[in-house]
Amino acid sequence: MSLLENLQWRHAVKAYDPTKKVAKEDLNRILEAARLAPTSSGLQPFRIISVENQELKEKMVAGALNPEVMRDCSHVLVFAAWDSYSEEKIDKVYDYHTDVRELPRGRFGSYTDQLKKMYGAQTADQHFAHTARQTYIALALAMAQAAELKIDSTPAEGFSNEVVDEILGLREMGLKSVSLLYLGYRDEERDWLSNMKKVRVPMEEFVISQ
Amino acid sequence: MSLLENLQWRHAVKAYDPTKKVAKEDLNRILEAARLAPTSSGLQPFRIISVENQELKEKMVAGALNPEVMRDCSHVLVFAAWDSYSEEKIDKVYDYHTDVRELPRGRFGSYTDQLKKMYGAQTADQHFAHTARQTYIALALAMAQAAELKIDSTPAEGFSNEVVDEILGLREMGLKSVSLLYLGYRDEERDWLSNMKKVRVPMEEFVISQ
Repeated sequence: MSLLENLQWRHAVKAYDPTKKVAKEDLNRILEAARLAPTSSGLQPFRIISVENQELKEKMVAGALNPEVMRDCSHVLVFAAWDSYSEEKIDKVYDYHTDVRELPRGRFGSYTDQLKKMYGAQTADQHFAHTARQTYIALALAMAQAAELKIDSTPAEGFSNEVVDEILGLREMGLKSVSLLYLGYRDEERDWLSNMKKVRVPMEEFVISQ
Repeated sequence: MSLLENLQWRHAVKAYDPTKKVAKEDLNRILEAARLAPTSSGLQPFRIISVENQELKEKMVAGALNPEVMRDCSHVLVFAAWDSYSEEKIDKVYDYHTDVRELPRGRFGSYTDQLKKMYGAQTADQHFAHTARQTYIALALAMAQAAELKIDSTPAEGFSNEVVDEILGLREMGLKSVSLLYLGYRDEERDWLSNMKKVRVPMEEFVISQ
């Protein structure tokens, strides 16, 4: 199926069948799509915490908008962004890039100097505003990959960042949660959105051609 | 080809062949993928300005990090987010949803009341921080769709928001530019990234399993 067909097929599922689990191999493909997401300057300033453990999920539901969705889904992917950029983080990424490409370290030195200067002039809040945006690229590609595999998913911002950060120990890792992606298989009877028409703003209103 | 193969194929092209144009039908598929992007509460709080006009492109390059990429590409998609949420905008979207689904208007009234209360307590800057994030979902799906069609693309944040907003008259439309997606066909000789290995952080570092 094409991407457009997959996007037509998917919707934000509102109820999962708690007895059905996403297979390891499928999960890996979803995570791989997220890993391949392009990001600003290639820094990939986020990580994914893949939560299958039911006890952890039960703890994370505190403050969630749809606790039963989190409880019943197979896996919760937590998209967590760097709390800030630093010269060390930039160097680590670019040293790895040059090593993999068998180029001399420092090959992109003038570019990374620019990055360091730009981010050095910004606050940690500005950094996080930027790293958080990047996570949505990976979130979208993970959703698209799930749809290709006919695995249901629900993107979610309605949860307590404080609770999730605390329970997963994200602060200590220099990360802050941004969004969740619930994965699993829909419970057709309880998923009220299953039989509703997908609605989007008409193309002529969505796009302005110049 | 699968999504993963398409994501492996694509890269952020650094030089375009100015003689090659993206066909209208292909462009429409790319825009359709962006239109189908899921967004928070289904509000789709952004629009795309599709710029093919060379004079406009020449004006938009002022302040761009890679002016020749913008000049030579076939189309520039400008992802522009709502500058703020409002009760009117929320009602307009939900009235449209209920109309298309042949449901009584107000069917989602308790939900939209919650949304209005939540956004009513926030500043316009907080609104824009949120609407801007949503655009990245559409940006990612547009890129994935371009790759499926073997059309090259380059996502870009390195441009002058002020210049682009001014030239396209976005302020008057209640929009603010967030990112660009250049579309076209690579000039293999000038695209220094074409022959470089794709580098991503290893899976074992990217994902934390719980």
